[in-house]
Amino acid sequence: MRPSVPGLDSVLAGDVGAIAGLIRALDDELPGAAEALQALYPRGGQAFVVGITGSPGVGKSTLTDVLVSAVRARGERVAVVAVDPSSPFTGGALLGDRVRMQRHATDRGVFIRSFATRGRLGGLSRSTSAAVAVLDAAGFPIVFVETVGAGQSEVDIADAADAVVVVTAPGLGDEIQALKVGLLEIADVLVVNKADREGADRTAADLTGMLALGARQVPPVIRVAAATGQGIADLMTALEHLRAAPQEKRVERRRRQAARQLVALAGEGARDAAHAAIGTPESPGPMASLVEDLAARKIDPWTAARALTSGEVLG
Amino acid sequence: MRPSVPGLDSVLAGDVGAIAGLIRALDDELPGAAEALQALYPRGGQAFVVGITGSPGVGKSTLTDVLVSAVRARGERVAVVAVDPSSPFTGGALLGDRVRMQRHATDRGVFIRSFATRGRLGGLSRSTSAAVAVLDAAGFPIVFVETVGAGQSEVDIADAADAVVVVTAPGLGDEIQALKVGLLEIADVLVVNKADREGADRTAADLTGMLALGARQVPPVIRVAAATGQGIADLMTALEHLRAAPQEKRVERRRRQAARQLVALAGEGARDAAHAAIGTPESPGPMASLVEDLAARKIDPWTAARALTSGEVLG
Repeated sequence: MRPSVPGLDSVLAGDVGAIAGLIRALDDELPGAAEALQALYPRGGQAFVVGITGSPGVGKSTLTDVLVSAVRARGERVAVVAVDPSSPFTGGALLGDRVRMQRHATDRGVFIRSFATRGRLGGLSRSTSAAVAVLDAAGFPIVFVETVGAGQSEVDIADAADAVVVVTAPGLGDEIQALKVGLLEIADVLVVNKADREGADRTAADLTGMLALGARQVPPVIRVAAATGQGIADLMTALEHLRAAPQEKRVERRRRQAARQLVALAGEGARDAAHAAIGTPESPGPMASLVEDLAARKIDPWTAARALTSGEVLG
Repeated sequence: MRPSVPGLDSVLAGDVGAIAGLIRALDDELPGAAEALQALYPRGGQAFVVGITGSPGVGKSTLTDVLVSAVRARGERVAVVAVDPSSPFTGGALLGDRVRMQRHATDRGVFIRSFATRGRLGGLSRSTSAAVAVLDAAGFPIVFVETVGAGQSEVDIADAADAVVVVTAPGLGDEIQALKVGLLEIADVLVVNKADREGADRTAADLTGMLALGARQVPPVIRVAAATGQGIADLMTALEHLRAAPQEKRVERRRRQAARQLVALAGEGARDAAHAAIGTPESPGPMASLVEDLAARKIDPWTAARALTSGEVLG
């Protein structure tokens, strides 16, 4: 039997098999999957989507795991979408969510899906945002999106989440510290994880110092030890506070996100069109000669790109 | 006096002041700068552009510094373009190249320019590729481009360089190890830096193991201690080998890069156009209502993006 796209009614009713099937169908780009998502999209918007991001090694997965337990302890259903660095050799996630899968595997109130960041584009894959839209429409009241905060993905998560938790930890090197500065900009809550380790006070003080230099409202800095549960109640309180943000604040955030999402999709569409116009060496497209001219430096990249986009034939 | 765009003849003659001035003019988007670059572009193509990338903390800057000295010891001129993580608060580079500037400051055969990765796009800025094109046309036989290998920038460097050196070091955590896998894909040479430290043998063995899993030709793995100079001669030999690659191999690489560059520029152009069509809350563009409709979930993002790109008014 060929895989098919699950019915919308089952997804909207929260059927876990149907949800997983639709997410898989979107990832595999099965016929009908995109149309199903478009139909589902207007039914979402109620979920509280929380991004969890930070430099490598700060303990994001453990923190997400503990937050899932905290949400479950209050009786709410919760979904996790995790984006892992991928191996070009195996095509799969290296780290995965083995621990979490074991711990929450028998809990029907928890839905977990990992994506490898496949391909060379970096950042959140289209599949990830599609998965969040499906889980939202399917009625999960909370969706955690866990992603490595490096390069493009930190931007993407800020554009996809209602609240962003940036995770840091004591004892990382100077250069990682520098990378973190880009993350500070998008934080609604800052977590100093591994707060039971030496240097946590210093890390918290450094963060508070860096934040004081910025113009915008300073987010709370919360010390947490995910491994022992220390500080998790404080973090949950901070998240609940963000969740209860006034309607106009939420609308304004979504308006900004919508604008960025449209710009990103327009860019992706143009890239797809350019790919088609260029083609491959085996199957050249109508504008393939532009590539040869640019490689031979007969033309500069900017003039060539304008010609490609306008469909103009030079010569 | 207002800053102006230096004359092309001075740049082509290798005048350092004119080169620096044009790079600055491009960065500041002064009128005439883009046209100057387009005119210069066909004059380049002789430089050997070497990307130096790797995870945070592996010692890329020290390695670049030592390579510059090694090139200078042979009497060739050399340029360095370094891309640093930037602070949204200061707008400037946090790490900078203070050490290198001091060491090579009085050497007229060395040109060094740092860029902060400004804005939220991540990766190599347009200014960086423009700077490389200027330095190439100005006759620098070797240009090193140093960039943090995280997210988008690892892709960009592979598309901008004739050879990519991926730097690793012993003693980094598992998650950093995982990130590194994405870098392996683009490496023409792999360096295990800090090879005088414990764990270097293990790191080299791990890399060799991961590489053996891949389908493509395995790049050399070279142990280096940039701080002591150990292994630098081996690395220089490996780079010379790549520099002497047969013409058809170089042409094929540049053809692939040209195709990717055109696709990237087409995407950027579409993003710029989408920005203009949307406008801002203060100054809405002709398609601003699409943003409101998407934020209110009256429309799905994919349909909205198609409408935006086609200029179609929905209703």
